[in-house]
Amino acid sequence: MQFNKIVEKLKQGQSGVIDFNIKNNPVILTAASLEQAKENDISFLDNNSPANLKNLIRTSKASALLLPANDNYIVDIIKKISGDWILLKEPKIAFAETLGLLYPNEREKEGIHESAVIGENVKIGPGVSIGANVYIGDNTEIGAGTIVHAGVVVYKKVRIGAKNLIHANSVIHSGSTLGDECVINANAVVGGEGFGFVPTSKGWKKMPQVGIVILKNKVEIGSGSTIDRPSVGETIIGEDTKIDNLVQIGHGVTTGKGCAMAAQVGIAGGAQIGNGVILAGQVGVSNKVKIGDRVIASSKTGIVSNIEEGKVVSGFPAIPNKLWLRCSANFKKLPEIAKAFRQLDRRNSR
Amino acid sequence: MQFNKIVEKLKQGQSGVIDFNIKNNPVILTAASLEQAKENDISFLDNNSPANLKNLIRTSKASALLLPANDNYIVDIIKKISGDWILLKEPKIAFAETLGLLYPNEREKEGIHESAVIGENVKIGPGVSIGANVYIGDNTEIGAGTIVHAGVVVYKKVRIGAKNLIHANSVIHSGSTLGDECVINANAVVGGEGFGFVPTSKGWKKMPQVGIVILKNKVEIGSGSTIDRPSVGETIIGEDTKIDNLVQIGHGVTTGKGCAMAAQVGIAGGAQIGNGVILAGQVGVSNKVKIGDRVIASSKTGIVSNIEEGKVVSGFPAIPNKLWLRCSANFKKLPEIAKAFRQLDRRNSR
Amino acid sequence: MQFNKIVEKLKQGQSGVIDFNIKNNPVILTAASLEQAKENDISFLDNNSPANLKNLIRTSKASALLLPANDNYIVDIIKKISGDWILLKEPKIAFAETLGLLYPNEREKEGIHESAVIGENVKIGPGVSIGANVYIGDNTEIGAGTIVHAGVVVYKKVRIGAKNLIHANSVIHSGSTLGDECVINANAVVGGEGFGFVPTSKGWKKMPQVGIVILKNKVEIGSGSTIDRPSVGETIIGEDTKIDNLVQIGHGVTTGKGCAMAAQVGIAGGAQIGNGVILAGQVGVSNKVKIGDRVIASSKTGIVSNIEEGKVVSGFPAIPNKLWLRCSANFKKLPEIAKAFRQLDRRNSR
Repeated sequence: MQFNKIVEKLKQGQSGVIDFNIKNNPVILTAASLEQAKENDISFLDNNSPANLKNLIRTSKASALLLPANDNYIVDIIKKISGDWILLKEPKIAFAETLGLLYPNEREKEGIHESAVIGENVKIGPGVSIGANVYIGDNTEIGAGTIVHAGVVVYKKVRIGAKNLIHANSVIHSGSTLGDECVINANAVVGGEGFGFVPTSKGWKKMPQVGIVILKNKVEIGSGSTIDRPSVGETIIGEDTKIDNLVQIGHGVTTGKGCAMAAQVGIAGGAQIGNGVILAGQVGVSNKVKIGDRVIASSKTGIVSNIEEGKVVSGFPAIPNKLWLRCSANFKKLPEIAKAFRQLDRRNSR
Repeated sequence: MQFNKIVEKLKQGQSGVIDFNIKNNPVILTAASLEQAKENDISFLDNNSPANLKNLIRTSKASALLLPANDNYIVDIIKKISGDWILLKEPKIAFAETLGLLYPNEREKEGIHESAVIGENVKIGPGVSIGANVYIGDNTEIGAGTIVHAGVVVYKKVRIGAKNLIHANSVIHSGSTLGDECVINANAVVGGEGFGFVPTSKGWKKMPQVGIVILKNKVEIGSGSTIDRPSVGETIIGEDTKIDNLVQIGHGVTTGKGCAMAAQVGIAGGAQIGNGVILAGQVGVSNKVKIGDRVIASSKTGIVSNIEEGKVVSGFPAIPNKLWLRCSANFKKLPEIAKAFRQLDRRNSR
Repeated sequence: MQFNKIVEKLKQGQSGVIDFNIKNNPVILTAASLEQAKENDISFLDNNSPANLKNLIRTSKASALLLPANDNYIVDIIKKISGDWILLKEPKIAFAETLGLLYPNEREKEGIHESAVIGENVKIGPGVSIGANVYIGDNTEIGAGTIVHAGVVVYKKVRIGAKNLIHANSVIHSGSTLGDECVINANAVVGGEGFGFVPTSKGWKKMPQVGIVILKNKVEIGSGSTIDRPSVGETIIGEDTKIDNLVQIGHGVTTGKGCAMAAQVGIAGGAQIGNGVILAGQVGVSNKVKIGDRVIASSKTGIVSNIEEGKVVSGFPAIPNKLWLRCSANFKKLPEIAKAFRQLDRRNSR
């Protein structure tokens, strides 16, 4: 795609084109980082990049650049090197849009592969692609344009909306409901039974898990992640919430809209997560805890009690992030502090 | 099911019916939480519930209630509202039993789906159901009444007992032995090779993993969990031990009976876990550590050395839970303490 | 295999035979730990074993022993008991080699199982075994001697080298490149899309992930682990790097040669890991962090900033291991220290 066509497309997008320079109007074939870029590549630099990355602009072999308009240092550099560039409010969004232009999603073959096994009374919408060795249980519905990759198992009575992308060998249990435009990555498990056992004198009594999982529109579930169904009621993942790999969502959890949960997060049963909550990698949330809107928890945080909206928390148990930074900086002084305390103690006890 | 029939069934169960009131004798169709219940629902409240939940009894639309007999506050409420209710020693067990009555397990079709691939010399007991696209390796045995869902892969020489429930796309490696009434959830891996590599001057030398995994009766393994086999000998999961999702059990681990391990627990090779041990979410256990009977570790605990039976531990490295609670409460005072220490130090060095 | 034949084979190996004693020259059928060994078993004891293990030599029923040559205590014992033994520089390597002799890998049937589905223009080398219900996408190449177990899904345009072992139900995404002699364990996912979303006023904008994953020769990936592809460029796992179960490797991560990552490690996007780095269980690494060669991080460490080569680190945020040991030993004194601080404060404020 020629550079001037990318300029035109980005003008219609969400990235905010401020200025651009068409000099050689190169053909752009692929995209790469500034360091790895070669001829016919387009590259980008995000807002607030560190100085060492900014200086790569001088040496990068990229044929075209997407750059932040509000950075005078960068603007100075490019005015000198005088190549093909676009200055943008949001260069990262521009790069995402450009990748979409250069690498359109591969179309899967429409239709049902002959090796797939389809149960009774299954409703399959137009434009659906069902891959090899897929199994679809009885009374399940699959909406228009959904792609189901090889080896996926969908149990009975599942409702899958339109334009979902379901990757290989993932499993969707009975009763689960998926909205539109969801992505289920490979080997994820949606709607498995919640972990519910009651202690009795004869050992564990299993609490039947007869609830369901609901994924609203535009939910994405990472590879190997597990979303459990509850004993009664629903586990609900809110619209546009994105979940990374190997995340555990316990039975009866609800999340709001637009949350992001990084890899290996674990959320115990019944926790209620607000809108726009961001949980970094390996965060744990205890059962029935309520987390307010727009809370951010840094990596490895353990949230054991309710968190008010807008808070940024860290540590285990979670405390305000700024306090935690000071506490953990002082943690490494503990040996000295303990020594001083012992001396003090000795003096006082004399 | 009519309410009086539920009363009769619970009297024969383990929940301890103390008193009941049949007023409207409603038909109970489904179960729900107090908040979500509507007509024809049954709901419950556990022992020691918080006051805000207790007050929901007044407003809940449930047609019948399972309630704790030992709670005077609740007993007062229900004597006033005068609906259909049962007072029980163990309302949670009653609810589990009621769910079993209202939602009987769906019967899978007996027999071997035509798309399944069965190896040579496989023994399959009566009443077994083998789903679509399953693969069963040579010389494997599957006991009576076991259900194997679509996409499961069982390697060679596996022995699976009676009445197991094996969910979609899980994998059971060669030599593994499963007792009766086990549940293997979707995408779990039983008997994968342990992580054993010996450093040499030419890089890692692989330690062959020729041992096996043994799951005793009534073991349950969560979705995506992995139970490794050892280099020699056995990895053993004791009877009635329940393992949640995304848990890692290393090679040669043994656990006792009736343990519970929450999601994302990791147990390193050779650890020996007693009976009735409870590990909360994201707990880690170091290799070869011994954990005594009935030890409880709270979430994110890191157990790096032996723990005596009956202890409740927390933190990393693990210390007694009560001590940890006091320590972590004081952790957030570290900046002040460090400041006082610096002042003290300055004064002393004058 | 007769004991004297094992002696001969080990002399040709890497374990450094120092001395041996052929007395009964037993037939060795199997291998076991010292405790579990019975007749016709061979067993071993590693260098630097604790005394209680050493004393097992006296009582073990093993017919032959592999023992450390540099341990006078052990050498004294065996000169008295006078059985069949070998003294070695590296008894653990000897044991690994012996397991390889006693338990040769089972040969899988060469050829493509009739239930497998092979796409268009797939190149399959000689000696390849493709199991039941496997799916191989268009334009993929599979090198000589590679074994692909049942239920594996390989997407389009994947290049798999020679002698790989790919276990059941694992998934390899489009564009991924595997060297020779790699092992992909069950339910692992190689080349899933990285977790990249840019916040916009209309919700999350997905950053297309059009890069690829490259596994160099002799890489091993544990059961259920996930290796993500980046938006552009490559995620690279270096030669001979071994990854345990349920590990998350984010988009654009690169690792050097000969690393080892234990279960449940999580490495965020763009981190650069040197050669010979060892990360213990549940370690987390933040995005874009650089870790030097031969760094060791103990379990649960959280690495949030660059670590110089050769360092041993612990804790969160990571500090030198020795310092962390002293700090965490003092953590449990915090209640006393805080109390002393309060008294001090009161006295000073008088």
